[in-house]
Amino acid sequence: MLEDMDFIKSCDVPGPTKEAIRAIILYKSDVKDSENVVDVGCGTGGITCEFAQRAKHVTSIDINPEAIEMTQKNLDKFDLGDNVTLICNDGAEALKDIEDIDIAIVGGSGKQLENILELIDSKLNSKGRIIVTAILVDTKVEAINKLKELNYNPNIMEVNISKGRVLDRGIMMMSENPIAIISAKKR
Amino acid sequence: MLEDMDFIKSCDVPGPTKEAIRAIILYKSDVKDSENVVDVGCGTGGITCEFAQRAKHVTSIDINPEAIEMTQKNLDKFDLGDNVTLICNDGAEALKDIEDIDIAIVGGSGKQLENILELIDSKLNSKGRIIVTAILVDTKVEAINKLKELNYNPNIMEVNISKGRVLDRGIMMMSENPIAIISAKKR
Amino acid sequence: MLEDMDFIKSCDVPGPTKEAIRAIILYKSDVKDSENVVDVGCGTGGITCEFAQRAKHVTSIDINPEAIEMTQKNLDKFDLGDNVTLICNDGAEALKDIEDIDIAIVGGSGKQLENILELIDSKLNSKGRIIVTAILVDTKVEAINKLKELNYNPNIMEVNISKGRVLDRGIMMMSENPIAIISAKKR
Amino acid sequence: MLEDMDFIKSCDVPGPTKEAIRAIILYKSDVKDSENVVDVGCGTGGITCEFAQRAKHVTSIDINPEAIEMTQKNLDKFDLGDNVTLICNDGAEALKDIEDIDIAIVGGSGKQLENILELIDSKLNSKGRIIVTAILVDTKVEAINKLKELNYNPNIMEVNISKGRVLDRGIMMMSENPIAIISAKKR
Ligand SMILES: Nc1ncnc2c1ncn2[C@@H]1O[C@H](CSCC[C@H](N)C(=O)O)[C@@H](O)[C@H]1O
Ligand SMILES: Nc1ncnc2c1ncn2[C@@H]1O[C@H](CSCC[C@H](N)C(=O)O)[C@@H](O)[C@H]1O
Ligand SMILES: Nc1ncnc2c1ncn2[C@@H]1O[C@H](CSCC[C@H](N)C(=O)O)[C@@H](O)[C@H]1O
Ligand SMILES: Nc1ncnc2c1ncn2[C@@H]1O[C@H](CSCC[C@H](N)C(=O)O)[C@@H](O)[C@H]1O
Repeated sequence: MLEDMDFIKSCDVPGPTKEAIRAIILYKSDVKDSENVVDVGCGTGGITCEFAQRAKHVTSIDINPEAIEMTQKNLDKFDLGDNVTLICNDGAEALKDIEDIDIAIVGGSGKQLENILELIDSKLNSKGRIIVTAILVDTKVEAINKLKELNYNPNIMEVNISKGRVLDRGIMMMSENPIAIISAKKR
Repeated sequence: MLEDMDFIKSCDVPGPTKEAIRAIILYKSDVKDSENVVDVGCGTGGITCEFAQRAKHVTSIDINPEAIEMTQKNLDKFDLGDNVTLICNDGAEALKDIEDIDIAIVGGSGKQLENILELIDSKLNSKGRIIVTAILVDTKVEAINKLKELNYNPNIMEVNISKGRVLDRGIMMMSENPIAIISAKKR
Repeated sequence: MLEDMDFIKSCDVPGPTKEAIRAIILYKSDVKDSENVVDVGCGTGGITCEFAQRAKHVTSIDINPEAIEMTQKNLDKFDLGDNVTLICNDGAEALKDIEDIDIAIVGGSGKQLENILELIDSKLNSKGRIIVTAILVDTKVEAINKLKELNYNPNIMEVNISKGRVLDRGIMMMSENPIAIISAKKR
Repeated sequence: MLEDMDFIKSCDVPGPTKEAIRAIILYKSDVKDSENVVDVGCGTGGITCEFAQRAKHVTSIDINPEAIEMTQKNLDKFDLGDNVTLICNDGAEALKDIEDIDIAIVGGSGKQLENILELIDSKLNSKGRIIVTAILVDTKVEAINKLKELNYNPNIMEVNISKGRVLDRGIMMMSENPIAIISAKKR
């Protein structure tokens, strides 16, 4: 279990994906230690660090070199990374060279979501799982529509978390921004 | 209609109560222009400025002199305040001298919530309304329990708002902290 | 102030729009008693009954005859309706014959949202306001995009309400479904 | 990964704890297959079925015989239960006879929360974890206060989930009731 505050952060790289969201993604992924994971848009490595502990291998992609650097730093910090490959490239390019995917997480895609989902679909093993996290309303609609088009039966869950600060005078709840988790399973 | 961003703010005074919360409080208060309102813990004047536009008279109390100053500044800014009396004192003291209350809003009470609710109850006209806003979990329980003890039949509503930032690449939702609104009506 | 539970309901007509949402819509509309309101998709009349109390005139449109019937019933129940015209038609048709709109609420639009927003825009007085409520994720995106195209600067607020049931053993919170409120003002 | 809808349910027994909440509890528990878990108030077995797959042993307690029956049925359904002991008794009694606890989940406690937390504290191994789920506002405050009194440094997270129903005309979000997860770790 990794604490949000233990991650090394940078102003220029979003993340890490918050604890509750990581928990739900892990649960929905149903990852096994024989499985290969791709993390598209790895940011600060929040998702990568989780799967590195549980999967056979993780390939983490980000278009931003600083994100790749941050992910490496966090892997190092948590003493992880032996089974992780980092690729600095657009997901829509990098995925072309990746085969044998059991679980694909899409945490960032810029304007490439549809291409990325198509590529993932073409590389995904049967019973493979796709999980997209969305902070933009538009991404939710786009992910659902593209997954339906690709013949999946997608689920969507919107998560609103607030965390308590235990003060002397009482417990004050502070909200995190809402995140949608779109997930689908290959038949 | 007042915009959140149009209020003058200060680091040392909480507020203003956000737009959606002000809207719900106004609605629940069912204020008429013949009615007297008390705003206990007026902060930056978010609630006071709303009722000043709609009630006969508003008495606004805050224990913090800076809050009284801020409320005055915001009343001035919105060209309001002719029907507002500002009192810098503990609500549990100031209320002793106030009679004929139709609507009491409690936006801050420190450790005095129970005393404040007792005093309000003793000064509240029949069909009068009490509305407490709570950011602390403890305040919710305390307000409900005290109002039940005072023979009210309180309602509680928890409000989670997120607001969209319309970006080029899409709409991103940003959360405000959850607020509870506890309300009750004198028989 | 109308209580949700006081509305007459029907299995075949959605609504009424819940109390907190009505409150926020009223607040954002900034309605004056000299203004004309259109309620497109009036359902059971939740919105219509509110504006009937505050506007000069309300025109309420629904494509479903049962909705028109329900709205009439609720207007009757709350002793309202003298300033309300009910029209049973598709909003995209009915709006063609309506002029001089100060406030337009769109609570339902089927597949006609873009047409309806275009028509409203062409009939809306300067400083007029448009408010769309959305329960579908897709409607949020569509409303924002269309309003931007029509040269508005839309706001979006997502509202998550839970209401407490005060039980003997404590207060249990029950959620209402999330609603988005998209609003815009004509320059 | 268990689907909410795959659990056998009964009108008289609350549960199962929903997927996202189970996911967060599992994550926060950081359970290892060498560890012993107690599930106080096991209801329909939502939590028990999860830990049965991951812990060394699970002791599940419920005061309601029907809950014990339901938990047994769900264990059977998911082909689990070899490492589970079911006890039909008040948690405040049953815990007296249980030793060597690594993880304690409290999903129901009636009026016994303080006693139950005291007992758990006295049986909890060092580095052990306590997780309380609360649907009542009062339980949140009580759990936090008791855990502070027992020298823990509790966290509280409030979880609001809505799930999408993918309809032809779009994605409609339906809310689940808010749940608080209070967690603490023994030093
Ligand atoms: N087309 C694309 N290909 C690869 N990475 C992309 C991309 N579009 C956006 N990204 C990356 O997606 C990331 C989204 S933030 C992801 C946070 C991450 N899940 C964490 O837990 O830390 C950003 O770092 C951004 O650079
Ligand atoms: N016992 C008490 N008597 C009077 N004011 C109190 C008080 N305890 C706390 N307060 C005040 O309650 C306020 C809470 S913040 C209120 C914000 C306000 N509703 C707005 O819209 O701006 C603080 O300014 C604090 O000084
Ligand atoms: N194109 C269209 N024109 C007119 N009404 C429409 C429409 N598409 C959907 N509707 C109506 O929109 C309504 C949405 S439900 C609205 C609930 C309402 N605000 C209340 O408070 O009661 C439904 O009654 C539906 O019949
Ligand atoms: N003092 C007590 N001791 C044992 N069980 C209790 C109790 N007070 C309440 N309960 C039980 O707590 C349960 C809460 S519902 C728990 C749901 C469960 N987590 C699931 O996933 O299915 C109820 O079944 C109730 O009978």
